[in-house]
Amino acid sequence: MNKEALIQMDLDNIWHPCSQMKDYETFDPIIIKKGKGVYLEDIDGNRYIDAVSSWWVNLFGHCHKRIGDVLAQQANTLEHTIFVNFTHEPAIALSERILKVAPQGLEKIFFGDNGSSAVEIALKLSFQYHQQAGRTQKKKFMALTDAYHGETLAALAVSGCELYNAVYKPILMDVERVQGPDCYRCQWGLQRETCKGECIAHVEEIMASHHEEITAIIIEPLIQCAAGMKMYSPIYLKKLRGLCHQYDIHMIADEIAVGFGRTGEMFACDHAGITPDFMCVSKGLTAGYMPLSLVLMTNKIYEGFYDDYTTLKAFLHSHSYSGNPLGCAIAVETLKIFEEEQVIEKNRETAAYMKEKAIKMLQHIPQVGDIRFMGMVGAIELVKDRNTKEPFDWKQRVGYEIYRIAVSKGVLLRPLGNIIYFMPPYVIAKFEIDYMIQVAKESIELYFRRNKP
Amino acid sequence: MNKEALIQMDLDNIWHPCSQMKDYETFDPIIIKKGKGVYLEDIDGNRYIDAVSSWWVNLFGHCHKRIGDVLAQQANTLEHTIFVNFTHEPAIALSERILKVAPQGLEKIFFGDNGSSAVEIALKLSFQYHQQAGRTQKKKFMALTDAYHGETLAALAVSGCELYNAVYKPILMDVERVQGPDCYRCQWGLQRETCKGECIAHVEEIMASHHEEITAIIIEPLIQCAAGMKMYSPIYLKKLRGLCHQYDIHMIADEIAVGFGRTGEMFACDHAGITPDFMCVSKGLTAGYMPLSLVLMTNKIYEGFYDDYTTLKAFLHSHSYSGNPLGCAIAVETLKIFEEEQVIEKNRETAAYMKEKAIKMLQHIPQVGDIRFMGMVGAIELVKDRNTKEPFDWKQRVGYEIYRIAVSKGVLLRPLGNIIYFMPPYVIAKFEIDYMIQVAKESIELYFRRNKP
Repeated sequence: MNKEALIQMDLDNIWHPCSQMKDYETFDPIIIKKGKGVYLEDIDGNRYIDAVSSWWVNLFGHCHKRIGDVLAQQANTLEHTIFVNFTHEPAIALSERILKVAPQGLEKIFFGDNGSSAVEIALKLSFQYHQQAGRTQKKKFMALTDAYHGETLAALAVSGCELYNAVYKPILMDVERVQGPDCYRCQWGLQRETCKGECIAHVEEIMASHHEEITAIIIEPLIQCAAGMKMYSPIYLKKLRGLCHQYDIHMIADEIAVGFGRTGEMFACDHAGITPDFMCVSKGLTAGYMPLSLVLMTNKIYEGFYDDYTTLKAFLHSHSYSGNPLGCAIAVETLKIFEEEQVIEKNRETAAYMKEKAIKMLQHIPQVGDIRFMGMVGAIELVKDRNTKEPFDWKQRVGYEIYRIAVSKGVLLRPLGNIIYFMPPYVIAKFEIDYMIQVAKESIELYFRRNKP
Repeated sequence: MNKEALIQMDLDNIWHPCSQMKDYETFDPIIIKKGKGVYLEDIDGNRYIDAVSSWWVNLFGHCHKRIGDVLAQQANTLEHTIFVNFTHEPAIALSERILKVAPQGLEKIFFGDNGSSAVEIALKLSFQYHQQAGRTQKKKFMALTDAYHGETLAALAVSGCELYNAVYKPILMDVERVQGPDCYRCQWGLQRETCKGECIAHVEEIMASHHEEITAIIIEPLIQCAAGMKMYSPIYLKKLRGLCHQYDIHMIADEIAVGFGRTGEMFACDHAGITPDFMCVSKGLTAGYMPLSLVLMTNKIYEGFYDDYTTLKAFLHSHSYSGNPLGCAIAVETLKIFEEEQVIEKNRETAAYMKEKAIKMLQHIPQVGDIRFMGMVGAIELVKDRNTKEPFDWKQRVGYEIYRIAVSKGVLLRPLGNIIYFMPPYVIAKFEIDYMIQVAKESIELYFRRNKP
């Protein structure tokens, strides 16, 4: 079938995620035919560097041979089985491997299908745990401003991005919202590399006065990704861990985006040397192949539900595809690759190169207000005024327009508001980094030549 | 690794879904090694007929060659791509095929990862649609008693099964709950085959008085599965459709369990010849291989969100793996198999045989209160007294104990409370149906010999 017919069918039938479909009137959906390494290739043979790892999921490049082979083999052996009272070796192997690399003290895993469901599982577990322990007044979750934890309504309720949840406010549960770190515009005028996490004071204040009502705090460790790759210090996490212990509030680490090496360590919590009560992982868990998520937790939590059936203390959550063998087999292979190919170690050089190159090539652009990096994540915040850090009006859609230019030049640089970011697959080569950043530079400059600020 | 070591690892590391883990002290998890057709085979070579299609997902048997081949091929071509502004042929092909077989008038699809996310998407869309149309007082969803719509907190809120949601009540959104059909214990003393859906009166009463506050009603068409395969008449659906039109309330059909031929037609709504405003599908969509879900809706809904970006009317929902090519390729192959192998037509004979056999073999058992069938779904309701229809005390766990006996005899007959049900893959042969029902019979009888009611 020809391209025009396919595009018409797509637009006739499909409502794309996170899209105002009217935008597609002037931007045809690009039909991807194949993937290989860091590249996506469209139906006309044009290639795009997948600089955002297809929404932060891809780790080792597209169509990775080892993973494809394992998937095909698993599909011919056991594609799926019910997971209550039944189990299988891929799930057991995954449980062994993930608990070995996870922060010490996380000892049990529960399966979900995607990030949102992992967040909902953690919220439910935390709430039910406290209820069953007699702390029935603990009915509220706490979360940071600018947080993003997913799209199902409870995950959206704990999220702090107004863009995503404002319209649903009347049906969202009430959440204790607390001002989170904001290092680029630090209210204390400090630097994240040298500060002592002073802004934890906001959390401390609310916990001190409201801890009896608070079940858990959920947090994206080190990087608030959807908010625009807002990065903060590990000291903040360390202090938060202390406060949660002090006030008997669970700490839920949402490592969905930052886990599996993105920040430079296996998990972002590792930078702070802490163990949360719950850790949610997804995205990179399957190296970008298919939906699967896990909630890891302590045995203390598990034991709070372990009792005779008739006490009704069980956690009866389930998904049809809980523990899906295809996803588990891929996740096992992913963790094997991490170990056998020293991924975290090798990423250090790639990350350092990417950071150095970005600073060198982009810092002179007048609209570049901040260049921030952490591990394999880099972000460029564009501002109207470098001195006042005044942001561009969102209605101008600066990031979106730059993204459209970059796509036409072969780099998929999907923005977050006025922030252009790099989160490429780990296999990106130096010359590909050069090209990715060069295109970012050209696209930013071209946009501002056309649209004088 | 040997069986004992694997079991120990499983119990050390994994928290199984929908389980009181203490039950596992006397019931080791069964390690499934492979699947083929209707059978799951464990590490010792024991085979189990998968009489519940592994939680209602499997359609054409385990490890189906056509599907395995398509999956392997897709994994080597394009395993995944971001789905905003980008698209691919498996998604487009799936959109064409599913809209052709879905109830007429459903014209757009939105992608989710699992059943719960599909339900949340439909709830969000319905709410936002009314809000944007200025009907801001519409803030409440309506749902039936005994309903089951998933596990994320909003899906759980609309669910009516106390077993699953009672503990979370303090954090669940308020729902307009209405008495649903209860054909085995009909309050009018009617039969579902001949009634006129008289019990719709309950819905009518609430809609008449509260329609201005009600956004949508969500319903499992024809079978409330998790409640124990409670079946009701298509006339009820037809009348409900009329009421929803009359009162400007969206009708959300949750076809997650009943879709793809389970009830004897492609979708349960087809029995009533109606088109809901939203239809959620998952489970069988991928023939039992992996998580994927869709929400289908009318163009009228879609148009309510179509506007300039700056109006902020867009539906910004997304999942990392939205439109995953692996899931789409499997779903396309699934729909091809339906068409090319005349699955719905062939199932008629299988379904008739299964029903006849079950009635013949089970109706004489004193504790069998009801035998109900619809298409490829059959259920046996066990009661203390056939005349009064008095149920067994849930604490006795009658269904669970019978299930344990049946598993030891090679049939996976996971119960729902006091209800034993058959929902096998469509490829089940007559001799396998015979065996499945024979084991159900022996297990029920053995249980009641050991435990005199």
